[in-house]
Amino acid sequence: MATINQNYQKLPGCYLFAEIARRVAAYKEAHPEADIIRLGIGDVTQPLPQVCIDAMHKAVDEMAHQETFRGYGPEQGYPFLIEAIREHNYTKRGIQIASDEIFVSDGSKSDTGNIQEIFGLDNKVAITDPVYPVYLDTNVMAGRTGEMQENGYFAGVTYLPSNADNGFTPDLPKEHVDMIYLCCPNNPTGTTLSREALTKWVNYAKENDAVILFDAAYAAYISEPEVPRSIYEIPGATDCAIEFRSFSKTAGFTGTRCGYTVIPKTVTGKAADGSRVRFRDLWNRRHTTKFNGTAYIVQRGAAAIYTDEGQAQIKELISYYMENARIIREGLKSAGITAYGGINAPYIWLKTPNDMPSWDFFDKLLTEVNIVGTPGAGFGPCGEGYFRLTSFGDRENTKRAVERIKTQLHI
Amino acid sequence: MATINQNYQKLPGCYLFAEIARRVAAYKEAHPEADIIRLGIGDVTQPLPQVCIDAMHKAVDEMAHQETFRGYGPEQGYPFLIEAIREHNYTKRGIQIASDEIFVSDGSKSDTGNIQEIFGLDNKVAITDPVYPVYLDTNVMAGRTGEMQENGYFAGVTYLPSNADNGFTPDLPKEHVDMIYLCCPNNPTGTTLSREALTKWVNYAKENDAVILFDAAYAAYISEPEVPRSIYEIPGATDCAIEFRSFSKTAGFTGTRCGYTVIPKTVTGKAADGSRVRFRDLWNRRHTTKFNGTAYIVQRGAAAIYTDEGQAQIKELISYYMENARIIREGLKSAGITAYGGINAPYIWLKTPNDMPSWDFFDKLLTEVNIVGTPGAGFGPCGEGYFRLTSFGDRENTKRAVERIKTQLHI
Repeated sequence: MATINQNYQKLPGCYLFAEIARRVAAYKEAHPEADIIRLGIGDVTQPLPQVCIDAMHKAVDEMAHQETFRGYGPEQGYPFLIEAIREHNYTKRGIQIASDEIFVSDGSKSDTGNIQEIFGLDNKVAITDPVYPVYLDTNVMAGRTGEMQENGYFAGVTYLPSNADNGFTPDLPKEHVDMIYLCCPNNPTGTTLSREALTKWVNYAKENDAVILFDAAYAAYISEPEVPRSIYEIPGATDCAIEFRSFSKTAGFTGTRCGYTVIPKTVTGKAADGSRVRFRDLWNRRHTTKFNGTAYIVQRGAAAIYTDEGQAQIKELISYYMENARIIREGLKSAGITAYGGINAPYIWLKTPNDMPSWDFFDKLLTEVNIVGTPGAGFGPCGEGYFRLTSFGDRENTKRAVERIKTQLHI
Repeated sequence: MATINQNYQKLPGCYLFAEIARRVAAYKEAHPEADIIRLGIGDVTQPLPQVCIDAMHKAVDEMAHQETFRGYGPEQGYPFLIEAIREHNYTKRGIQIASDEIFVSDGSKSDTGNIQEIFGLDNKVAITDPVYPVYLDTNVMAGRTGEMQENGYFAGVTYLPSNADNGFTPDLPKEHVDMIYLCCPNNPTGTTLSREALTKWVNYAKENDAVILFDAAYAAYISEPEVPRSIYEIPGATDCAIEFRSFSKTAGFTGTRCGYTVIPKTVTGKAADGSRVRFRDLWNRRHTTKFNGTAYIVQRGAAAIYTDEGQAQIKELISYYMENARIIREGLKSAGITAYGGINAPYIWLKTPNDMPSWDFFDKLLTEVNIVGTPGAGFGPCGEGYFRLTSFGDRENTKRAVERIKTQLHI
């Protein structure tokens, strides 16, 4: 008889954003007049840069004529996009990445979720806590963890606490780990790891023959010059790190879907016979077997941001959101709320007043001032007592939300 | 230390289409003047229907304005597309499928490759032989098979021979199996299973608590009225079958990427505690955790084919390719070559003259008449002695290719 993948049963039934949607819907039904402002889910609100629009119109037209029509493209992505990525994000910054070490995809959620498939099930996984839930969930689904414990932690996973006490810079694990997920700038905390902290992780990975899975989906939001944009700015990282990047937040592609993964050929894992195998080759096999490339039209849109005009437009887009971040950050401060992030990332991570549980604060914010945010507990046990606001709203709503928090919220 | 997914090591190093590309490139280098006609890979050549072009232009424009911009959409797909699929492909044909049983994706290759993740590793897999390689490869990668044997078969997999001797209608397996991959119309043989044959499979699945994974990517090419377009036309199939559909061949979306999977809630599997779990719920969890929806622009393009105008345009597109199929089929016949398929599918499956091994016939066709096809052996051991030609070329090239086979090939 057909059996199910039993690992799925380990996952808690309710997904964070589904529960948020449920509570918001219930409130709205009871208060249909409520003017709700959403600063919860990390979705963008501003239109795509004009260069992307123009490039996609052109690509759509190409699909209308036999001479320029595109069928199956390379699963790894078109050279026009790969070369633009390589040049702008790596070569220009002094990082040597080969064209066949870059894999274009339909976004970082897919890539960071799928990457674990090329690793053995016996690898010990480490994740920072709190963090984007996909890393953990996909490892649970694959069977690389035990059951969830009463305290909210999964057995067999190494959690790396990251909070105000350690400056959001997790310590190296005491036990040995093999796969280390780092999200930098971090979702949800909006904080980054310094060059020094990243160097420690790279050294750990090299010494322990571990692999760092470095999610840099928010790299374009880094404003401080000393913060590394890529893990490969750290010496030795091309021997032990896989990097994920996305156009979602860089260029408003959350509904257009494009990202990429970089796997240097020097990142290898151990096979059963003791030989070393390139993860790049395994990923290439996975990518060509379980994926058929990103839409040509979308790849043309993504490539457009690498023109001078495109770079100017995404800079403007990012500045817009980061000005929102500044407004939220300073508004919270003047409301007497402690907050982190928002300098090198579009997320503001606030400490709930009086250590209020984060779901209680969610309800309070929703009912008192009609603002939707995201409870920190949804990102891991160490997120308890924290709360995420995003700067992806439009300016007017962001200002109104901050004004409400300052004047109407009873802290 | 980080270990690799050892199952990948079981896969043969050389992928079918990569080997074809290598041989063609080598020949071209030696004979730069050769006028090569490609009837090998199953990729379309004709432009997208105008309704899709128009819809995508409109969608691109929507992305340029804040009021109409779309960020994250539902991972399962937009209701406008799901409802159109439901209405046109199911309700109109008397099949009851609920909206939340349809999952839009970036294509059937992803879906047919990923679906096995929601099944336990202990399920016994059956595939027809020959068949599209993704079903087998993804099960190998997941660890649901043993090693590849010298005869080309993987241990632990039930192969269902499908050839001229049994009218390309495989027998039910003698041993018990749990997951049954059926591709209908079949890639590569271009043949279909009758209502009677499909009924046997559905009955087998129901009696044995097995699940049929029914790949109907080529359903739009079925011309004979008695051939089922959907597995759900067979009574009982909604209890035991998952269906995959694609816009790739239906509307020329190979480079635009859209498909969908249908999982009725009544299709369940056994959990460790003996309870029954809906595969639909597991797929929903997978889809929302490891995928972030298909591009809005692409979904708008796909939905456009369900208008009256769209239906007329895809009918014309399919007729164009099916006329190519007729030309190839009749050309082969008059050249004295036995061929199958090409009536309800865009593939022609020919028996190699004098039982020539299929790779030898590949070389012969390439060197004697400069035509690229696909060796049957690449689709499974039972494909040996057969060869696939596709009708996706343009008319002129198809005619020229057939003329060459008739007049220049030494059989």
